[in-house]
Parts: sequence; C-alpha cells; structure tokens
Amino acid sequence: MGMSERVSASGSAPHLYEVVAGSIRQLIEEGSLKPGDRVPSVRRLSRQQGVSISTVLQAFMLLENGGWIEARPQSGFYVRARRLELLPEPRVSKPPRAASEVSVDDLVLKVYEAARDPSIIPLGAACAAADLFPAAKLMRLLGGLSRRLGSRINDYDLPPGLLELRRQLARRALDMGCRLTSEDIITTCGCTEAISVCLQAVAGPGDAIAVESPTYYGALRIIQSLKMKAVEVATDAGTGLQLDALEAILRRRTIKAVLAMPSFHNPLGSCMPDDHKRRLVELVTKYDVPLIEDDIYGDLAFAAHRPPAAKAYDRKGLVMLCSSFSKTLAPGFRVGWVAPGRYRDLVLSRKSSLTLATPTPLQWTLAEFLQSGGYDHMIRGLRRTFERQVRGMSDAVGRSFPAGTRVSRPMGGFVLWIELPPAVDAMKLFDAAIAEGISLAPGPIFSARPGFRHFIRLNCGHPWSDRIERAVSTIGRLAGAMAAKA
Amino acid sequence: MGMSERVSASGSAPHLYEVVAGSIRQLIEEGSLKPGDRVPSVRRLSRQQGVSISTVLQAFMLLENGGWIEARPQSGFYVRARRLELLPEPRVSKPPRAASEVSVDDLVLKVYEAARDPSIIPLGAACAAADLFPAAKLMRLLGGLSRRLGSRINDYDLPPGLLELRRQLARRALDMGCRLTSEDIITTCGCTEAISVCLQAVAGPGDAIAVESPTYYGALRIIQSLKMKAVEVATDAGTGLQLDALEAILRRRTIKAVLAMPSFHNPLGSCMPDDHKRRLVELVTKYDVPLIEDDIYGDLAFAAHRPPAAKAYDRKGLVMLCSSFSKTLAPGFRVGWVAPGRYRDLVLSRKSSLTLATPTPLQWTLAEFLQSGGYDHMIRGLRRTFERQVRGMSDAVGRSFPAGTRVSRPMGGFVLWIELPPAVDAMKLFDAAIAEGISLAPGPIFSARPGFRHFIRLNCGHPWSDRIERAVSTIGRLAGAMAAKA
Repeated sequence: MGMSERVSASGSAPHLYEVVAGSIRQLIEEGSLKPGDRVPSVRRLSRQQGVSISTVLQAFMLLENGGWIEARPQSGFYVRARRLELLPEPRVSKPPRAASEVSVDDLVLKVYEAARDPSIIPLGAACAAADLFPAAKLMRLLGGLSRRLGSRINDYDLPPGLLELRRQLARRALDMGCRLTSEDIITTCGCTEAISVCLQAVAGPGDAIAVESPTYYGALRIIQSLKMKAVEVATDAGTGLQLDALEAILRRRTIKAVLAMPSFHNPLGSCMPDDHKRRLVELVTKYDVPLIEDDIYGDLAFAAHRPPAAKAYDRKGLVMLCSSFSKTLAPGFRVGWVAPGRYRDLVLSRKSSLTLATPTPLQWTLAEFLQSGGYDHMIRGLRRTFERQVRGMSDAVGRSFPAGTRVSRPMGGFVLWIELPPAVDAMKLFDAAIAEGISLAPGPIFSARPGFRHFIRLNCGHPWSDRIERAVSTIGRLAGAMAAKA
Repeated sequence: MGMSERVSASGSAPHLYEVVAGSIRQLIEEGSLKPGDRVPSVRRLSRQQGVSISTVLQAFMLLENGGWIEARPQSGFYVRARRLELLPEPRVSKPPRAASEVSVDDLVLKVYEAARDPSIIPLGAACAAADLFPAAKLMRLLGGLSRRLGSRINDYDLPPGLLELRRQLARRALDMGCRLTSEDIITTCGCTEAISVCLQAVAGPGDAIAVESPTYYGALRIIQSLKMKAVEVATDAGTGLQLDALEAILRRRTIKAVLAMPSFHNPLGSCMPDDHKRRLVELVTKYDVPLIEDDIYGDLAFAAHRPPAAKAYDRKGLVMLCSSFSKTLAPGFRVGWVAPGRYRDLVLSRKSSLTLATPTPLQWTLAEFLQSGGYDHMIRGLRRTFERQVRGMSDAVGRSFPAGTRVSRPMGGFVLWIELPPAVDAMKLFDAAIAEGISLAPGPIFSARPGFRHFIRLNCGHPWSDRIERAVSTIGRLAGAMAAKA
C-alpha cells in the first residue's frame, strides 16, 4: 500500500487519496469530464494510478463529499450536473487541556423528551424515521422462528450471547477488515451498554477518558454516570480525531481509555482516513491504552463500501469494537455487540453483572435476518436514502441560515454539524425552536466543558418533506434574528 | 387491623397469624378436621376470629408451608391426606458485622456456564423450564401488534418506557398493595438493570449496602461491579430479614441502601410477614436510608394471593420497588421495571445513560398480554406448578440426602436452600456434581464473605422427571460420601 509511509508523522503532507481526488477534480474543472459523464471505475483508476482500491474509494468519498461526483446504484460514479454550492466546513475544534467533570444531563434529557413527543419536528435526537427500517419483515422472521424454536425463543440467553447471532456478526466483521470469531464477540443491550461495560472494564471513578471534541452526548453521559472524567481531543471536521493532539495528551497524563468514533463521527460526520486509523491504533498500542471504538454509523457510508474499522489494524487486542443495529436495522430492538479484544473476560463479567442477559427473541431475529442475506441489500438502500436526506438538509441550511454559517460534509451517517455565527446562542436557539415545535441538538451537549455555544446538530434521519423544509427555514430565521441582534 | 400493635418491637410475642394457624392446627391434630376436609373459608375465619382477611391468608400460608393443608384450585383449602414429613429448616444465619469486598465472580460464571449447557441437568441457576411460559402466545400477540402498529413497533422507546406497559404495571401494583401511577414507573432491561441503576442512583464506590445473608448472588455481583461493599444482615429461614439485626447495623454505621427480597427470598424462599415489612419500612424511614426491594418472585406465592410488597407501607418514597417478568412470563425478554419513589429522576438518568432504552416490541407484547387479562390465569397455574416442583424436590432430598440435612420451606418461588452436614464442602460437591453432569448452586456464592460452605441451593424450575429424581439422588449420594468421610 505504501500509503502510510508517504504521510509524514505530522500529517502535513497531502494524503495519497487527496492527490488522486485532486487529479480527477482537475479533469472536471478543465472540462475533460463533463456533467453526467461516468468517472473511470475504481479498478481502472487503481491500475492507472498505481494505488490501492481503498485509496481510490477514499478519493471518491472526498469528491462525493465535496459535491463533485455522485454515486448511481449498480452503475458507478458520475460527474454531478451542477456542483453543489457548499457552505464552508466548521473549523477545527480546540478544546482546553484539562480534564472535565461531565454535566450535560438535564439538557440531554430535554432533547430526549422532545424526541418522545410526536408533535415536535424531530431534528434533535439522532433517530431515523422508523419507516426506513424493515419492521414487518423482522416481525415475520420472528414469527417463523417462534414456530421453529418453540419455547426456546423465550428462554434466558446468558452472555456472551446467542451463538447464531455472534456467528453472523463475526462473518460481517470481514467487511470492517476484521477477523473475528464468534468467541470474540459479546452481545449487549445496544451500543450504549457496549460502551458502558467497556468503560467499566478498564476504568473507574475519577479516571480520565480521552474523547473527541465534540463528541456524542450519550458517551459523555455514560462517563458522567460512571463518575469518570473526560479529556477532550481536537478534531478536524473532515478527518475527525487529530492524532497529534491525542499523542500530546497521552504523553502528558494518564488516560485510562480512548473513546472514539473513527467512522462517521457523531456529530461531525467525519471519517478518519485509513492511515489515520492505523496510526491511532499504533498510538494506543505505544501508550498501552485501550481504544473503545464506537462504530455504530460505520455501515452507513455514502460511498459504495464501508471503510475499515480501526480494529482492523489491532494486533494486540487493545481495541474494543462496539456497535449495534439501532442505526441500520432495528432501533427498537436495543441489540448491540462488542468485540473487546484482550478485555473479554472483564467485559463479560460487567455485562452479566449489570443487565445479566440480552433479549433472546430479538437476537434470534437479527441472526436470521443477517443469515438470509437481506442486510447488504437493505443497507445499500439506506445509504442512498441518508445521503439524500443529509444533502437535502445541507442545501436547505445553505438557503435559509444566516451568513457566516458553516456546515459539516458528512461522509456517512445522518447528522449535520453546523457552526452558526458566534452571536447565536445555541441554548436560546434550542428554546426558541422548541417553542415553535421543532427540536434540535444544541452544541454544548456535545462537550463536557462549556463549549460549542454557537453550534447545533441537526438530525437528517427523516425523509425530506415540506414540514421539515419549513422547520429548517424557521431555525434559520430564528438564528438569523439572533445573529442580527448582536 | 391492630396486628402491628400486638407484636412487640423485639418480635418475641407470637404473631396474630401464628395464633390463628395454631388454632387450626389443633383442630387437625385432635381430629376435628380430618384429612380431605375443607378448611373453613378465609372470609368465615376472618369473621369468626375477628381478624383481618390478610391475617387469615398468612395463617394459611404457614399451615400450607408446614404441610398441614393444601390449596385446591377454585375450591379452597383442604387438610392434607398425610402430613408431609419435613426436614428441619436451616438455622438462622449469623454473619459477621464487618463490611466485605465482594468477590463471587468466577464461581457464578461457572454456574452460568453450566446453565448454558443443555447436557447438564439444570439444578444450579434459578431458571425455570422455558416450556412453562406462554412463548407461542406472546409471539402471536407480537405478530398482531406488528400488523396494527406498523413500523412504530421498531422505533426507539426512550425512558421512562412504553406508556401502555407502565399503565398495566401501575394497575397490577394494586395486587402488591401499592398505589402507583404510570409516571411512577420506569421500564428496564430486566430486574438486574433495575437493581443496578437503583444502586448507582443512591450509592457510589466504597459505600456500604446492607443485604440479607444469604442473598442472591446476582445482587452481590452488581455490588461488586459497582465497587460498593456488602454488609450482611442475619435472616430467619421462615421470615427472612431479621429486623433487629438490621437496626443494630443502621444504628452503628453509614449504610447507603438496604437491598432486600421481602417476598419469597432467593435462596431462602422466606416471606417477611406483613408487619415485618411494615417495620422494615419504618426502620429505613427512621434512618432515612433507601430500600431497594427486589420483588421478582413476589407473584409466585404458593398461597392463593400474593403478599403485599414492602413498598405498600412506604409513605416517604424511600422504597425503590424492582421487578420483572423473567420468573413469571418471559425469561428471554429481559423486560423489568422499577418504581423508584423519590429517586425517580436519578434512576431515570442512570437508566438512560447506561443502556439508553428498553426494547420496544417486547414492551408492547407484555403490555398487550397484561391488558388481555391472561396474566392472572397463567400465574395461578404457575404457582401450583412451582409449588409441586418444590415439594417434589424437597421430598427427594428427604429421601436421599445424608442425616443432618436441613431444608428450607419456601412459601413461593422455585428454589430450595439446603444446609448439609458441616463436613460437606459445597464447592467440592459442586465440582463432583458437574463431573456427573449435574449443576447446583454452592452456598458460598450467596455471601460476600467466606460462608455457607456446607449449603447449596437447588433450582426447582423444571417439571419433575426421572432424570431430575436421579440427579437429586446422585447429589445426595455424593454429599453422603463426603459427610461419611469426615
């Protein structure tokens, strides 16, 4: 591959995939590739430019994300008819170096409360529309399983969890570049439990956990509940976790775990390039610190293939890979899993202590769905849907938000991270939006310290509609008024 | 009622229900009531003796438990044809007063491992036979719900949990003597999560939790996982938690919570008399310590009615009532609940931090089952089944265990607590039994300190069979050999 060698340790030299992307962009700009033209295939470009398939895919992701090209199902990549007018991306985050007690609880509960109210337009919590998931099919499968298995479907299933499901998960892990066996995997009550038992396995009250800044508020709440401390690491809106910033922290102080979302970060939507993931694993290995990898959005790449997990580069068992089906298949099932590497016994013990077991009928149903091969087909559709919804939301923000707004360019998942003009107070914007029957996620809940006061996250999990269009325009108007008043 | 006034604070005077039971026993002993005769009805005795219905029911429970009378469905109580030859009960436990770090983990995982292996005869973990529960009916209900609700059945359901289920739970709480509304209840991933979030809401690492001695090893594992300490309280095999012993502890040291199973204790099978429950709540109120009440076996009374929960006597919101459907309806669902009283906000926050939500389709299914009224009918059958199985096991132990064995007389639930001759080492007995393909739960896992070395618990959750008969006789033979060698 040679890629990692060509990137300097400081990360300042351009990545190989950036070079590849640049050459294609040039072809478009000079008119050699015209709107509607098919871009050469991945395989061909890989051969032509002497780079790996994975590098070409990353280049395509970058171009797609930049609005230059678009994927068409079963056909390949095409030059977009009109390059999207994109707002600039949010700036690099620069968190302070001290560890923070976490306290985002009341605010997050408000966001959850809004999510429970069907009369409120759901741009707050990262919940996709239930209609996007194959509920009826899952329930039919469950009916068939019930007839086949009889009362076994209702019996305890003690950890590590249902073998049939763990086998399917191990098989699917190949897509993440991981070689796992069913024995490496423990099923959990959602990705949330996976993360919380991993943290409990390797850290205790008062211990410092390194997290991205911003990061998923759910992760901060777990850290808060467990009375641990968060040390925030700077991020880049496009490539996520900044490795140099992480190393500076690891060198300086005792960190009991790094908790990160390398693929399709929430709220950034960023994806760490493969070589960054590799370096991340090298770093935690060097400092002998476990990495809890939250891959819950990993399968929701807008590109044709999902990127490898950081776990793919793990040789020492330091990476605890966590995920679930809540964003891809069954939000209501609360079935997740973890591949905890060398911490397996500790994680198994915490899991069985704290919730004893994972629901049996739901594990069976997911195992059956995965075995039937329906997952790949469904996920392809879901990726296109979420990409469309994210683009739609991004366009609407561009039309109606005040000047000076910056918007993330997610490479997967279904949330948008928005930096508003500094005069806009996200907390006041949240209250004003709720008063208009619209929820959003205010920036401050994505940090343990007071920060991101003029940022918000918007959930793009629902199909585009006039109602959502109007909601975005209302938020834009409210933000505009706040910006103008300053 | 007058009952509580007639009982001295030291608990030394006979309880009113004991007096009532004594007078009926006398009628049987003198032949006024002959084998097969119907015992006067509850209502009639209540009128005749000028005592409450509840007192008569407790008297019947005592007589039933003592092998004097038996319930016949839809008909009343009858004098047993032959009074059961009962082994004496295990003695009162006398734990030391110091707080203990808890460490039962490896052993319990061995017991769980045995429970996962279908080739091992399951007398270890307290798991009832899956066939006893209406899996097919639950799955049919789920199918119907899926058609009615569409994709809603697969959507997130954030805490406090599904309103329809919480409404049914509030309605059922009347049976426990509790007035609860749906707002008082939070659904959880099993009773285990309910207990673990309650503990986390009111205590932290290093804090002391008072528990019964012996107690459910799952409770000890939660305490261990949370790095809290256990202070063990003496119990009586018949009436459970000794209140004077508890008060002595509360007076002497800081206890952050009392965790107890007042109704059908695991492993004792004991049920605290109503006035003990009342005094227990008075005690924790006096010392302002929360009581976490584990009522998971509460509905499995062998008597015609379940006893009130301690929560029924709670006026200050200090009792956190925890239960689930794992022992009564759906072991595989992992749906439990908690009514946390004044600690509601803290518990809600911990629950949503640590596992986010409870599975939606399973909550719907239980709500529908409870609403259909099928629960009461099913539970009546289950009570008779478990009583028969417990009696069967007790008889078999009487036939095949060495002289000096003592056996609990459970008033509900489906486990038997057995004190073996002191020379028998339960750990060695466990290993010897596993070698013969039989699991059992060794006494030491029911205590945080080294204790109960010659005790075992047997699971009576499976229908009586030659296979189980032989297994019990094998355990008896192994124990006999160990007793003889000493």
